[in-house]
Amino acid sequence: VRRYVPGVTTDAVPGPTVDLNVDLGEGYGSWRMGDDLALLDVVSSASVACGFHAGDPVTMRRCVDAAGERGVAVGAHVSYFDLRGFGRRFIDVDPDELTDDVVYQLGALAGFTRVAGTRVRYVKAHGALYNRAAVDERHAAALVAAVLAYDPALPLFVMGGSVLDRLAREAGLGTVPEAFADRAYTPDGRLADRRLPGAVRHDTAEVCEAAVRIVRDGTANTVDGAAVPVTGRTLCLHGDTPGAVAHARAVRTALEAAGIVVHAPG
Amino acid sequence: VRRYVPGVTTDAVPGPTVDLNVDLGEGYGSWRMGDDLALLDVVSSASVACGFHAGDPVTMRRCVDAAGERGVAVGAHVSYFDLRGFGRRFIDVDPDELTDDVVYQLGALAGFTRVAGTRVRYVKAHGALYNRAAVDERHAAALVAAVLAYDPALPLFVMGGSVLDRLAREAGLGTVPEAFADRAYTPDGRLADRRLPGAVRHDTAEVCEAAVRIVRDGTANTVDGAAVPVTGRTLCLHGDTPGAVAHARAVRTALEAAGIVVHAPG
Amino acid sequence: VRRYVPGVTTDAVPGPTVDLNVDLGEGYGSWRMGDDLALLDVVSSASVACGFHAGDPVTMRRCVDAAGERGVAVGAHVSYFDLRGFGRRFIDVDPDELTDDVVYQLGALAGFTRVAGTRVRYVKAHGALYNRAAVDERHAAALVAAVLAYDPALPLFVMGGSVLDRLAREAGLGTVPEAFADRAYTPDGRLADRRLPGAVRHDTAEVCEAAVRIVRDGTANTVDGAAVPVTGRTLCLHGDTPGAVAHARAVRTALEAAGIVVHAPG
Amino acid sequence: VRRYVPGVTTDAVPGPTVDLNVDLGEGYGSWRMGDDLALLDVVSSASVACGFHAGDPVTMRRCVDAAGERGVAVGAHVSYFDLRGFGRRFIDVDPDELTDDVVYQLGALAGFTRVAGTRVRYVKAHGALYNRAAVDERHAAALVAAVLAYDPALPLFVMGGSVLDRLAREAGLGTVPEAFADRAYTPDGRLADRRLPGAVRHDTAEVCEAAVRIVRDGTANTVDGAAVPVTGRTLCLHGDTPGAVAHARAVRTALEAAGIVVHAPG
Repeated sequence: VRRYVPGVTTDAVPGPTVDLNVDLGEGYGSWRMGDDLALLDVVSSASVACGFHAGDPVTMRRCVDAAGERGVAVGAHVSYFDLRGFGRRFIDVDPDELTDDVVYQLGALAGFTRVAGTRVRYVKAHGALYNRAAVDERHAAALVAAVLAYDPALPLFVMGGSVLDRLAREAGLGTVPEAFADRAYTPDGRLADRRLPGAVRHDTAEVCEAAVRIVRDGTANTVDGAAVPVTGRTLCLHGDTPGAVAHARAVRTALEAAGIVVHAPG
Repeated sequence: VRRYVPGVTTDAVPGPTVDLNVDLGEGYGSWRMGDDLALLDVVSSASVACGFHAGDPVTMRRCVDAAGERGVAVGAHVSYFDLRGFGRRFIDVDPDELTDDVVYQLGALAGFTRVAGTRVRYVKAHGALYNRAAVDERHAAALVAAVLAYDPALPLFVMGGSVLDRLAREAGLGTVPEAFADRAYTPDGRLADRRLPGAVRHDTAEVCEAAVRIVRDGTANTVDGAAVPVTGRTLCLHGDTPGAVAHARAVRTALEAAGIVVHAPG
Repeated sequence: VRRYVPGVTTDAVPGPTVDLNVDLGEGYGSWRMGDDLALLDVVSSASVACGFHAGDPVTMRRCVDAAGERGVAVGAHVSYFDLRGFGRRFIDVDPDELTDDVVYQLGALAGFTRVAGTRVRYVKAHGALYNRAAVDERHAAALVAAVLAYDPALPLFVMGGSVLDRLAREAGLGTVPEAFADRAYTPDGRLADRRLPGAVRHDTAEVCEAAVRIVRDGTANTVDGAAVPVTGRTLCLHGDTPGAVAHARAVRTALEAAGIVVHAPG
Repeated sequence: VRRYVPGVTTDAVPGPTVDLNVDLGEGYGSWRMGDDLALLDVVSSASVACGFHAGDPVTMRRCVDAAGERGVAVGAHVSYFDLRGFGRRFIDVDPDELTDDVVYQLGALAGFTRVAGTRVRYVKAHGALYNRAAVDERHAAALVAAVLAYDPALPLFVMGGSVLDRLAREAGLGTVPEAFADRAYTPDGRLADRRLPGAVRHDTAEVCEAAVRIVRDGTANTVDGAAVPVTGRTLCLHGDTPGAVAHARAVRTALEAAGIVVHAPG
């Protein structure tokens, strides 16, 4: 049964807790990307590629098994069908087809969680689909329709305030707003264009400080250093850059040193 | 828990019933193969392609929905990863990888049955995997391992007496032996090489008669016309040949005229 | 060396001749689409799929060989990389990557023409790339760059007056304007939206009449029946509809009955 | 015209020269494997993946351009169609289809050499196809047929004495026997099973010494240290292991220090 309860969401109560999520299982066949096992020792949630932008079945199974052993929540990192482009290119797919594509990916991942004795805990769009669903009603609605039909209890990780966030809430889905400690924001709370000077932070200490501020104060910085309000129930770490694991560990340590508890939502 | 109960199977009691199964959803994107909807009005089981040899998500969803509306049992038609070859070519894939490939396909199909409010009712190997698992212990065991891990209550459709049949039974899985009314058999109960004269029947009346004999008498013919014992709890119809729908209807009518009840196993 | 000679083109001299082209080789593996051999007996040019939206190597080789035997010109029907979507979906691929994608497809097809002792005679964009390159400078330029780099003597089949037409001419490439006898046009010479009543003609006699008018008079009709000027050095026939072969034969017969010579450009 | 001149080959005259080849362009989309540019500064021949086991068009173009700038010979590294398995799995493809697959890959690579103003200089089978064509007449003959049809002047890199070597020579193709300085051999001149102790050398100094011996003395070692005759007109270096570039440089330096000239064949 589809429930339409506008405004209900899982992130209503702010607190000194946050989720740390990372994209996982982004290899394919003989190709590797990121150090999946090391990252799983740091994060509370793992968004696992489901075969459309990355993630062959062997990689998926290993990620799901390793996440289960560590008590890390597994999410379905759903994408446009685009291995060659790693899901980073907008594809003007028909929304009904996109809904079926998402159900397929959700089901495939759930095959491995079933075998592992765990379950899929959330859904997050990847790459171009993440960006598109943040602004495009048709593709956002297609994603919402898939999750509603498959399991309306599954929350969506979203850009807070995005079109996807709004449509998902209106449809009665829970949403978990995501923030980025390594990015500057615009005055109205969006991500600053990464081509702007200062839009992307590389310094680990600065990222750690920004992570704590997002969770504790609910603010992020613009490129000019001004504070803007940002809601982040989950922080996205990146696994495919040099030093990603050490960087992720530092962020977690900084959060915990500030008295913030890191755990998966729900 | 894996149960090993040699000799236990679901087809112990012969009777005046049989399943009619057909391969379904064998299109991909803009390409079509077979008349899925018309065949669903005739058969009791539909083996749905899961994206590895055919079957994009839109096609899968349509098949699952239409099967659900008609009360037709849906099975996972699992294959080697080979869209270009339609799953008809042996691929020397590592058995562990094959197990993961099968779990992926099972899960993906289960995504659509979940949305449709039905469930996957059985597993059948397609094409080259069907033929290989009938004789090769490594690939047969990989298939058995996948079904055991995913859902040990799922029966496998198998060539009766094949390596897959034996390994599945030994592992405690139910098996449903499959027979072919349009094929001649060898004296020891295997399919006759299709290149032999008389190995493949095209005449609908002859196929109908053979279907009734398999179910009622438990016998099939060799190319020389001799009778050999054959166990068929499910008969496989082909959907991708000209006149396939009329042919299938004739077989069902002939079975019912002989007092045989057509229904899905289990 | 890239030549930039604005305004030079191969279609300067109108005459009572026209090319008939059809999309060919649009199957993939076990999937078929259209009756390639029958169409090759009717047309003067065949746009052969190169593996990105359709066209496995076996299909390509058969098309190239059969075209060579009949003296039909072979063109490279280049596409976005999108087998599942049959190249009908816009993909926001980076232009430099698109250029490389086109070179890859051109080269692959040229492998088969080399073996057949013929050569690739033209380039035509397929589906979403055709539509996009007609209006988008970035993707049009990417296509032009590929042809210029690969062989600046190869003409492009284009919508007359499109962005691709203009950029190709400015870069010194020959262009062959294409018209559609089964479609109505807008007052300014573009294709009418196919969802409008009367935008798509299905009646063979009407299509034949429209084909003759395009070539003889240089005019097509709007949905309201008004005449608009249209330049068509090549007419595109469709091979994937029921009755496509009979339809194509009728158009050729009508053209020849009107004294129009059908032959490939150049 | 197909020439059948049994026994004629390009490697008749041994001398103090050898080719160094490496597998190149083995990334795909966002995935990388090996340091292509650094390796191109060391080798004389680069076997470029053509999209079937690795190698998207962007990667292919970059490899071909960089090889051209350095005067490194480009070969087509042709494979079974198997991105997920990186071409390392035998696929029981029909030989006629395999021939077309090879022509497709040759043509695609030649698209980029044409743009670069260079040409494809040789053909080498990759992975499972390399191993299969060394022992299987059907797949070896399919490969030979493709090269003969495409360009009978193209030499094949082969295991000396393999079925492919023999069939290629009998068909009039030139062959370049390949040897491996990092592997032990069997007493009859084949590669020792890599699972045997001592079958794979990792020590750079030992590999350098083995490389010089193969070229200068025409001998390699068994796992027991016995010398066996081996013909190597080209030595295969591996690019996808840690330290591959330094290792490759050491081998080249050792060869040149021994008075051996490193250059591409032909």
